[in-house]
Amino acid sequence: MRILVVGATGTIGRAVVAALSASNEVISASLSSTTVKVDIADPASIQQMYRSVGRLNAVVCAAGQAKFAPLAQLSDADFRFCLDNKLMGQVNLVRFGFEHVEDGGSFTLTTGILAQAPIPGSAAISLVNAGVEGFIRAAALEAPRKIRVNAVSPPWVAETLQALKMDPSQGLPATTVARAYLRSVTGTDTGSTLQPSA
Amino acid sequence: MRILVVGATGTIGRAVVAALSASNEVISASLSSTTVKVDIADPASIQQMYRSVGRLNAVVCAAGQAKFAPLAQLSDADFRFCLDNKLMGQVNLVRFGFEHVEDGGSFTLTTGILAQAPIPGSAAISLVNAGVEGFIRAAALEAPRKIRVNAVSPPWVAETLQALKMDPSQGLPATTVARAYLRSVTGTDTGSTLQPSA
Repeated sequence: MRILVVGATGTIGRAVVAALSASNEVISASLSSTTVKVDIADPASIQQMYRSVGRLNAVVCAAGQAKFAPLAQLSDADFRFCLDNKLMGQVNLVRFGFEHVEDGGSFTLTTGILAQAPIPGSAAISLVNAGVEGFIRAAALEAPRKIRVNAVSPPWVAETLQALKMDPSQGLPATTVARAYLRSVTGTDTGSTLQPSA
Repeated sequence: MRILVVGATGTIGRAVVAALSASNEVISASLSSTTVKVDIADPASIQQMYRSVGRLNAVVCAAGQAKFAPLAQLSDADFRFCLDNKLMGQVNLVRFGFEHVEDGGSFTLTTGILAQAPIPGSAAISLVNAGVEGFIRAAALEAPRKIRVNAVSPPWVAETLQALKMDPSQGLPATTVARAYLRSVTGTDTGSTLQPSA
């Protein structure tokens, strides 16, 4: 399969690329890439990316920013940033991507455990993650030509916890999280939010 | 209690006002009202409303528009409209409302069954409803002074089905739906999405 991975340079993205590369042609895109560069917050950038990469069998998004901060400190602009980026950025990858994906292909977006299990500071992230989950459930019903649409909801990732100087044993290794993306791409799920587990 | 009901003139809003009016002072606000007028898609309009109504014990929102249409026909502007209106409109009622609500007060927003049970045409509505549910779960954790934050997720409403010339027996009467709002306002739930039932 030809698989586009958006956010290929992040902690999860790198593990997803590694997991998929064994038996597929993986095209890596990211905000910082010098090859396929994309800013998912910019609809024109998404359209340009799709025109440049050609036909695809699957699109995986492990990109999307949202702001972690106390609710009282989140500004109108912070919410706007989160909606444009992790929420509409991923929604637009699906909307604009259908025509570039072959029959029976798939889209796999990324939400996160804060959708269902919030913590103080996660209001904007929880909103965005839950919104993406609501979208994929619905979009799966209207996807043309047997294209599937899923999300993966990662728990805390061990490597991220380590980078934050927190206890990595409370998280799942990125390679384990990547297995849920592999299942979404190679399996039969649609409209599902897949929860990686050890 | 002094209770602000936003969207007081809609099918659900009228039933909520009727249910709350027995033992509370209800202040009705809506897009079309000539007394307390508010456009929740406009942050300045929400701020102006709060300044005009004075101290409150509870805020109920039964307002918020989102567009029902095939995913392939939903434009960028349609998504923007839905995000500004039913999603950020309700989020902003909470964000801007905290300082106007007394200790132990509450916010009750409206989502809908399409959050969890989508149908073709509901992609934007499902996104928005699920996003609001993610937000209230998180916002409840950070609400100050024992203020509670909930949502009610109405099923199809009998009166709405009748207006659409569909079978009203497949829906719940608005008076039954209103009981879930009453429970949110007078009970102890917080961070919950209440499902009205017969």
